[in-house]
Amino acid sequence: MLELRLVQGSLLNKVLEAIRELVNDANFDCSATGFSLQAMDSSHVALVALLLRSEGVEHYRCDRNLSMGMNLNNMAKMLRCSGNDDIITVKADDGSDTVTFMFESPNQDKIADFEMKLMDIDSEHLGIPDSEYQATVRMPSAEFARICKDLSSIGDTVVISVTKEGVKFSAAGDIGTANIVCRQNKTVDKPEEATVIEMQEPVSLTFALRYMNSFTKATPLSETVAISLSSELPVVVEYKIAEMGYIRFYLAPKIEEDDEEMKS
Amino acid sequence: MLELRLVQGSLLNKVLEAIRELVNDANFDCSATGFSLQAMDSSHVALVALLLRSEGVEHYRCDRNLSMGMNLNNMAKMLRCSGNDDIITVKADDGSDTVTFMFESPNQDKIADFEMKLMDIDSEHLGIPDSEYQATVRMPSAEFARICKDLSSIGDTVVISVTKEGVKFSAAGDIGTANIVCRQNKTVDKPEEATVIEMQEPVSLTFALRYMNSFTKATPLSETVAISLSSELPVVVEYKIAEMGYIRFYLAPKIEEDDEEMKS
Amino acid sequence: MLELRLVQGSLLNKVLEAIRELVNDANFDCSATGFSLQAMDSSHVALVALLLRSEGVEHYRCDRNLSMGMNLNNMAKMLRCSGNDDIITVKADDGSDTVTFMFESPNQDKIADFEMKLMDIDSEHLGIPDSEYQATVRMPSAEFARICKDLSSIGDTVVISVTKEGVKFSAAGDIGTANIVCRQNKTVDKPEEATVIEMQEPVSLTFALRYMNSFTKATPLSETVAISLSSELPVVVEYKIAEMGYIRFYLAPKIEEDDEEMKS
Repeated sequence: MLELRLVQGSLLNKVLEAIRELVNDANFDCSATGFSLQAMDSSHVALVALLLRSEGVEHYRCDRNLSMGMNLNNMAKMLRCSGNDDIITVKADDGSDTVTFMFESPNQDKIADFEMKLMDIDSEHLGIPDSEYQATVRMPSAEFARICKDLSSIGDTVVISVTKEGVKFSAAGDIGTANIVCRQNKTVDKPEEATVIEMQEPVSLTFALRYMNSFTKATPLSETVAISLSSELPVVVEYKIAEMGYIRFYLAPKIEEDDEEMKS
Repeated sequence: MLELRLVQGSLLNKVLEAIRELVNDANFDCSATGFSLQAMDSSHVALVALLLRSEGVEHYRCDRNLSMGMNLNNMAKMLRCSGNDDIITVKADDGSDTVTFMFESPNQDKIADFEMKLMDIDSEHLGIPDSEYQATVRMPSAEFARICKDLSSIGDTVVISVTKEGVKFSAAGDIGTANIVCRQNKTVDKPEEATVIEMQEPVSLTFALRYMNSFTKATPLSETVAISLSSELPVVVEYKIAEMGYIRFYLAPKIEEDDEEMKS
Repeated sequence: MLELRLVQGSLLNKVLEAIRELVNDANFDCSATGFSLQAMDSSHVALVALLLRSEGVEHYRCDRNLSMGMNLNNMAKMLRCSGNDDIITVKADDGSDTVTFMFESPNQDKIADFEMKLMDIDSEHLGIPDSEYQATVRMPSAEFARICKDLSSIGDTVVISVTKEGVKFSAAGDIGTANIVCRQNKTVDKPEEATVIEMQEPVSLTFALRYMNSFTKATPLSETVAISLSSELPVVVEYKIAEMGYIRFYLAPKIEEDDEEMKS
C-alpha cells in the first residue's frame, strides 16, 4: 500500500508539467526510500529522472515496492483539478489497477477523489553512474529559460561554453548570430540570483535547443538550475524540488552535424 | 418608448456574456415591471430566463409593452465597446426597428451611441410554475464553475447528489472517475463563501456537463449560485443580478442513457 | 561607423512593434542628425516616418551616412530577446553587411550580442512638405486606440469630424451604426488626459479603419496622439517618442467609394 501526502500539493502539478512534454507514459516507482521516475523521451534522446524522498514528504507510507504505469497527460488532467493550496494525497492499494489522487482544500470543506486507471509499461531502468563534471554552472532558472527561448528564435542548437569568467550561450541561423554571456556573480542580495561556476577545465558543447526548452518547463519548481557539463558525458540539467528531491534531465551533446542518442 | 439607464453599465455586458453561448437570437420583453427575456437554447434542451426589475434600475420608463428581437452576438459586439465604468442607457421608440445603446464615460467627456437593427423572432413564452424543490444548494459561484470545468476533463455528465451533510458532484470517463464533495458550511467569514443546503429529501440527478458549463458563464454576475433539484423537474441554476433581478437556467436531468428535452 | 546607445532600450522594441505590421523591409538611414526611416506599407496606401534625433539619445556616433536595409520581423525577433530594463546599443561598421544589437542587463551581469544580416532594399525617399492643417486633435493615445478598435466591430471605415466642441468618430455596417463623441477637455488633472482641438475650420474625412488600427500599434510609445486633418491632405497620426523624436503615419482619406493611394 502506498500513501504519499503533500501539504504543498501544487508541487506535484509542477512536476507533471515539467516532464509531460518529454514523456507520455511512465512508471512511478515507489519504495521505502521514496517516489521516483526514470524515463526516456519518445525519440530516445533525452532522459528524465525524478526523485521525491520519503523523508521530505509530510506523510509517506510504502509497505512494499510498487511500480505504477501512468499516462502523464491523464494524470495532469486530474492534477489540474486540484486547487493551488490543496493538500494532495496519492494512494494505491497493492495489486490494484488504479491510483487515487485526493485533493483537500485548506479548510477541509471541499474534498475530491480522482481515481485513475493504471497501465502496463515496459521500461528498463538505466543505471546512471555518479560522475565528475568538467564544469557546473548554477544560475537563476528563469534566466536560463529565457536564454534558451531567446536563442530558439535564432537557431536550432546552442553552444554552451564555460570559462572561469562566465558561461556563454551561442546560436546561429539564417537571420544572424547571437552570443549571450552571463558573468560569474556571487555577490548578489539573494543567493538564488547568483551565477556560480565550478570548473576543472573549460568546456564547450553543443545541444539541441528543442530539448533544452523542454527541460525549462521545470522552471516553476526551483529558482535555480544547475547545468553540469563534460565533453564525454550527457549534460545534466538539475532542478531541486524543495527539500525533498529533484528532477534531472540528461541530454547527449551534438557531435558535429550528427544527432547522438544517449547510450545507457 | 423604452428608456433604461444603468449606472453600473458593465452588468449588461455580463448578462450578454452569460447567455449568448446558449442563445443566438432572442426577444427582450419590456413592460412597466421591467426588462425580461426567455429563450430556449438552439438545441431546445436548456431554457434561460432573465429579469431586470424596473425598481432596481436607476431610471426606467416603458410607456407600453415592447418586444425587441435582437441578435445577441451583434448586441454583445456593441456592448463590448462600452467602458467598464460607463453608464449605459438602452433606448427604443415605439414601432422603431432599431434600439440604441448609449455609453457615457464617468466624466461625460466621451459619449457613444450605438444603434442596432432589430429583427423579428418567433417565440413562445413558456409559463414556468413556481415549484417546491427537494433540495436547494447555495454555494460560491466560482466554486461551482470550477467543479463543472474540472469534471469536464473526466466525463460528459455530472451526477449531483445532495444529502444533509453536503453536495457531491461525480463524473466518470475513459481515464477514470472523480468525486468532489462540498460540505455544508455556514460558519464562514463572508456570507458569500458559505455552502448552505436546504433539503426536504436526498436527491441524486444526472446532467450534461456541456450545459452546466454554459450556465457558469454567468459567474461574473454573482458571487453565489443557487441550484434547485427535484427528481421530476428540470434543475434551476440561478444567479442573482445585484438588487435588480436574476438569470435562471433550466435543464432537464438525464434519464438513463437518453437525452430528455425539456417540455413546457 | 554607427553607434547608438539607448539606456531605455525597450523604446526600440516598441518602435519595431509599432511599424512592423505595416512594413516588412525598410532602410534605416543614419546620419549626424539621427536615425530615421521612411517606408510605404506593402499595399502602398500608408506611409510611416520615424525619427530618433541624435541629441535625444544617450550616446550617438555616426561618422558618415549609412543606409541599412533590415527585415523588420527578423529585427523584432532579435529585439524581443532584450530584457525590459536592458540598455541597447546598435552598432554597424562602414561597409559591413551586418548590424549588431547589444543588450546589457542593468547590473552588467548579462551581455548579449545579436548580429543580423542586412539586405539591399530599393526605396525612394518622399519629400513630405510641412503643411498647415484645418484641424489637429490631441488626445490620449489609448482612447484613440480603443475607439478605432471598437468601431472596427461595426464597419470598415471611420468618419472623423472635428468641430470646436469636439471630435466625432462614426462608423456604419450591417449590424447598425455607431457615433463616438469626445469633447474638448483641457481641465484635467494630468495633461496627458486632455483632449485639445486646434481648428481653422470644421473638417470631416473618411479613413480605412484597417490602417488606423495598424497605426495604433504605436500606442505604447506615447500617452498622447496628435491627429492632423485637412481635406486636401493625407491625415497625419503622430506619436512622440520621449524627448527624442516621433513616429508619424500618413493615410489618404477615402473619397466616396474609391481607395485613393497616397501620391508623393
